[in-house]
Amino acid sequence: MSAQPAPDREVPRARFRPPSVPQVDVHGFWGSRVDAVADKTADILYERCVEAGMLDQIDPDRPVPELRIPFMSMSPAAAADGKPLFTSGTVTTQMFWDSDLGKTIETAAYSLYRKPNPALEAKIDAVIDMYEKLQQPDGYLSSWYQRMQPGLRWTNLRDCHELYCAGHLIEGAVAYYQATGKRKLLDVMSRYADHIDSMFGPEPEKKKGYCGHEEIELALVKLARVTGNDRYMKLAKYFIDQRGQQPHYFDEEARARGSDPKNFHFKTYDYNQSHKPVREQDKVVGHAVRAMYLYSGMADIATEFGDDTLRVALDRLWDDLNSKSLYVTGGLGPSDKNEGFTSDYDLPNETAYAETCAAVALAFWANRMLGMGPNTRYADVMELALYNGSISGLSLDGSLFFYENPLESRGGHNRWKWHRCPCCPPNVGRMVASIGSYMYGVADGEIAVHLYGDADARLDIGGTEVRLKQQSRYPWDGAVGITVDLDKPTRFVLSLRIPGWCRKASLSVNGEAIDLAAVTADGYARIDREWKAGDTVSLDLELAVERLYAHPEVRPDAGRITLKRGPLVYCLEGIDNTVALNRIKVPGDTPFEARFEPDLLGGVVTLTAEAKDDSVAGWSGTLYRTEPPKSEPVPIKAVPYYAWDNREPGEMLVWLRGG
Amino acid sequence: MSAQPAPDREVPRARFRPPSVPQVDVHGFWGSRVDAVADKTADILYERCVEAGMLDQIDPDRPVPELRIPFMSMSPAAAADGKPLFTSGTVTTQMFWDSDLGKTIETAAYSLYRKPNPALEAKIDAVIDMYEKLQQPDGYLSSWYQRMQPGLRWTNLRDCHELYCAGHLIEGAVAYYQATGKRKLLDVMSRYADHIDSMFGPEPEKKKGYCGHEEIELALVKLARVTGNDRYMKLAKYFIDQRGQQPHYFDEEARARGSDPKNFHFKTYDYNQSHKPVREQDKVVGHAVRAMYLYSGMADIATEFGDDTLRVALDRLWDDLNSKSLYVTGGLGPSDKNEGFTSDYDLPNETAYAETCAAVALAFWANRMLGMGPNTRYADVMELALYNGSISGLSLDGSLFFYENPLESRGGHNRWKWHRCPCCPPNVGRMVASIGSYMYGVADGEIAVHLYGDADARLDIGGTEVRLKQQSRYPWDGAVGITVDLDKPTRFVLSLRIPGWCRKASLSVNGEAIDLAAVTADGYARIDREWKAGDTVSLDLELAVERLYAHPEVRPDAGRITLKRGPLVYCLEGIDNTVALNRIKVPGDTPFEARFEPDLLGGVVTLTAEAKDDSVAGWSGTLYRTEPPKSEPVPIKAVPYYAWDNREPGEMLVWLRGG
Repeated sequence: MSAQPAPDREVPRARFRPPSVPQVDVHGFWGSRVDAVADKTADILYERCVEAGMLDQIDPDRPVPELRIPFMSMSPAAAADGKPLFTSGTVTTQMFWDSDLGKTIETAAYSLYRKPNPALEAKIDAVIDMYEKLQQPDGYLSSWYQRMQPGLRWTNLRDCHELYCAGHLIEGAVAYYQATGKRKLLDVMSRYADHIDSMFGPEPEKKKGYCGHEEIELALVKLARVTGNDRYMKLAKYFIDQRGQQPHYFDEEARARGSDPKNFHFKTYDYNQSHKPVREQDKVVGHAVRAMYLYSGMADIATEFGDDTLRVALDRLWDDLNSKSLYVTGGLGPSDKNEGFTSDYDLPNETAYAETCAAVALAFWANRMLGMGPNTRYADVMELALYNGSISGLSLDGSLFFYENPLESRGGHNRWKWHRCPCCPPNVGRMVASIGSYMYGVADGEIAVHLYGDADARLDIGGTEVRLKQQSRYPWDGAVGITVDLDKPTRFVLSLRIPGWCRKASLSVNGEAIDLAAVTADGYARIDREWKAGDTVSLDLELAVERLYAHPEVRPDAGRITLKRGPLVYCLEGIDNTVALNRIKVPGDTPFEARFEPDLLGGVVTLTAEAKDDSVAGWSGTLYRTEPPKSEPVPIKAVPYYAWDNREPGEMLVWLRGG
Repeated sequence: MSAQPAPDREVPRARFRPPSVPQVDVHGFWGSRVDAVADKTADILYERCVEAGMLDQIDPDRPVPELRIPFMSMSPAAAADGKPLFTSGTVTTQMFWDSDLGKTIETAAYSLYRKPNPALEAKIDAVIDMYEKLQQPDGYLSSWYQRMQPGLRWTNLRDCHELYCAGHLIEGAVAYYQATGKRKLLDVMSRYADHIDSMFGPEPEKKKGYCGHEEIELALVKLARVTGNDRYMKLAKYFIDQRGQQPHYFDEEARARGSDPKNFHFKTYDYNQSHKPVREQDKVVGHAVRAMYLYSGMADIATEFGDDTLRVALDRLWDDLNSKSLYVTGGLGPSDKNEGFTSDYDLPNETAYAETCAAVALAFWANRMLGMGPNTRYADVMELALYNGSISGLSLDGSLFFYENPLESRGGHNRWKWHRCPCCPPNVGRMVASIGSYMYGVADGEIAVHLYGDADARLDIGGTEVRLKQQSRYPWDGAVGITVDLDKPTRFVLSLRIPGWCRKASLSVNGEAIDLAAVTADGYARIDREWKAGDTVSLDLELAVERLYAHPEVRPDAGRITLKRGPLVYCLEGIDNTVALNRIKVPGDTPFEARFEPDLLGGVVTLTAEAKDDSVAGWSGTLYRTEPPKSEPVPIKAVPYYAWDNREPGEMLVWLRGG
């Protein structure tokens, strides 16, 4: 971390890097989520990949499978039609399967660290052996282009996910190395990265391209960090810098294929954020996951290179997303047409696409914005996405998945076993299983605590191991205790996040109160002292039940409120309530009781109140009338949004009618 | 009209029949709508039919056109994609084109009566000549089965609109005969009806079928009435009686084709209302237009045969529609999936399908329920559909068309030149051009006035011509004057509708007040007297601005109101208002001013008020916050729903946030 920057970059400020997953053991709220992934999801992901026929595609010892259903003909809407995937005749071949295996390997890696699982480890090792065997002598590695469409490599970066697949396999390789110490896939992917580096770059003989689906950028940063090979970092920066430059690579590439560049299914390069150079972009546009992955890569490069031109662009994009296009759940991308953004304030609730992957990827981006220094403006959103719109994508037991995460349902939206386009299940799996790495950021002389919750961390500050033991029932309770343990007294800054949603917080060190106003910057209380073993920090965050209102231009939320307590957004479910949810009105002065219910949904705090019901009494046989419905008292109960649809199917509503 | 009923039927009550179009000259509100159809729509319909290639299909002297895009592959959604229809390569052949020509002939017929148009008349005559020439010696007549798919006639009544097409040509023939006195098409279609009668019926050698798309039933009733041929009436009754009987005709027919009956695109016979015998049906289901056409035919048969078993079923279906599935605009059929009904209270506003044809067909049904006697329960709904959700389908100048009639729009829903499935344009055209026939009902000894407005009617009551001159600015003003003219004093009942929405009405005859309570039954004031020339009736209906609330189970309307004045439903349009429409809140005590604006939208009464705006002040950069938006006064203006989208495109909203 104290290594000199490369000659072509300056580092004008502290760079914060997340700890690796093995450095943080989580318990409590996140511990049970991680256990669900380790106990169930990781195995399920592998098995579903096998059932989908992925191994038939990557294993060079098997016959090349039949090519079924070309990618472009398969709309996301068709993929999400809820039909069982694995009935005979419906199995499809996908050009992005390497990415699904990459994310499956990554999820398995974190899960193996969490809980040994020799059977799963052997299976993953076998997959890695297949990839090793598949890799060409020049380092190239793509099961699609080697086996399904040979001879076409590097001819359609715009549509075909070639570098995207490489990126996910790289992330899988890094995770597997960190969790198990096994280097095989890391070495394979380093060779492939070397090959990519030999194909793309500013040198005249190299291609000037980049991937239509961003991902390789952030993956190369991870690879650079774990291998120390700065060429990967520079290559990541090249892909970022080159995106959207003229002449447009996707135009030229299409012409080289003999295609008209205008013959692009998604019509505009907004779709893949190559409509203009990244530093000139000022609106979040196009496919939401692609956008978030791009901004994640940009944030990494801004951090690593101290690149303020990127930082300025990122802050513009951040403001745009957060002030106009983000669901209150941290979901994003309202439309199924482009799996992405539409127009300002267009946030429909029942038809929200809000893909699980997009909220996961927003957590990635926010986490990487924290690389440039602690700031609760980013951490608040990271926490929002983590606790709500991303983990809603995974059932409590780790076995079922949402692709879309609407904010209203009549009861027909339920988690599925799998998706034909199976990006979301391993994405939420790997995010949950690596949650420990989101909790902290470490820079020279500073440790930032971004998230609270029961956890044991072993962090490295200038070569000294700092062991932080957090004890907290967060997010159910706002009391957080942190015990510091280290071998010799060491001076460093411990920065503790005071969430933006918190109206009242108190902090003490070794029982001595700290004046928060005096030490807080960018929403982090910075305690700069020589820490010694046994030092204790007590932080108390008030968790009030808040009612949130949406900007008046958000059409479907007009006159409505949503309930939030701490980082958790709440919803009503039909099963907990006695009347149809849109009949319920919550007057402005309604008091809510927050109560922990240990036996409900794995243990959650529920919010209960007496609200008003638009009674159907007197309406029999009448559809419209001049008298308003009578208002009757009705008890209501809200549960955390992430936990909905874990009981029998029924209605769900996030935005309640206000009073 | 005084002809004896056929031996197999009893007529226990008065049967009311509508006057023919030439019997009623309309002026005022409807006069300008009829003129728009006569001046523009009628010609446009013919020209669009020609451009679509329909004449190439029906003219036996032309080469058989290429068969393009089979019907079943063309979803309504694809048809409604807003793309220009008549660019090269997109012209399709449709198996229901005879129906579009039938409705075009019908619209032309009424228009020719309204305004002579020799050029159009010559074109229609030429079309009729083609049909005459096309007709087979046995009477059969289908351009699809004779020219496009020869050899397959009567093999797929379920899907292929064969009898439906016959029905629309019959209606066109009846109208053309009534308006022009020309019998050629009437004779052609009588021969075809004779052929159909020889093919279908209870006799062992005949087919036991009926059409997948109802229409032939009500058409045969019209044909029977105009020709006096009772066989057509009995055949209509047969089709009604046979529908949904077991063994199911569509099952048997599919097997006869070598198909599995389960291989039905719409899965369930609910779609075409053949899921059970009609007398057992108790819920409106399936394709909305089909349902309304069926119920129209049932009402005709219930009227003509005095069949109370049908009447009971019809009243059940009427209650079901009106208490659970009807938009406040008289639109119906919320879903584009089946162009029809879904579940109780499922009435989404922005995505409402509410096909123009369905509201037109609801007017047909309601009108035919009045055949069994005046009852404002039916007339209110007829009036609602006529003034709102049907004529919204036609631009004020008669040149552009809606297929869907949503109750909310962000500005992107605009009328089109045509549709690939062009059912709606001629349907609304013929309905508007024949509006006079909806205004009255005539029975032995009774004339019922169902609708008010400037009009001159020449009705026949027991062989005496009764001339009624209505003078009224209705629907803008509730004052109605009726002057009676007839050659000799005649006793009959004049029944005047007191609309269900009217809170205050007064009535006088020759200046003498009538006690409404004493003479009103089923919402009609019955004036039984000897009428003489010069008698005057004055009716004053209070037109108050009403706010309507929806049943609490209608999710999207919860907490919302809609404005109605007399028969007209109002909406806000962006062009008349200063803020986004969902920001507007209308407190319960808001007074509205109703004012006639002669230069707006052809002259309409607007409703203006000072409402409340959820101000965006203080929201810059903020998407969610704990403080509600500030409420600021804002002037609002509402216009009649039917007239929306006749200026520059913009937002529209029917259900406003209540206070």
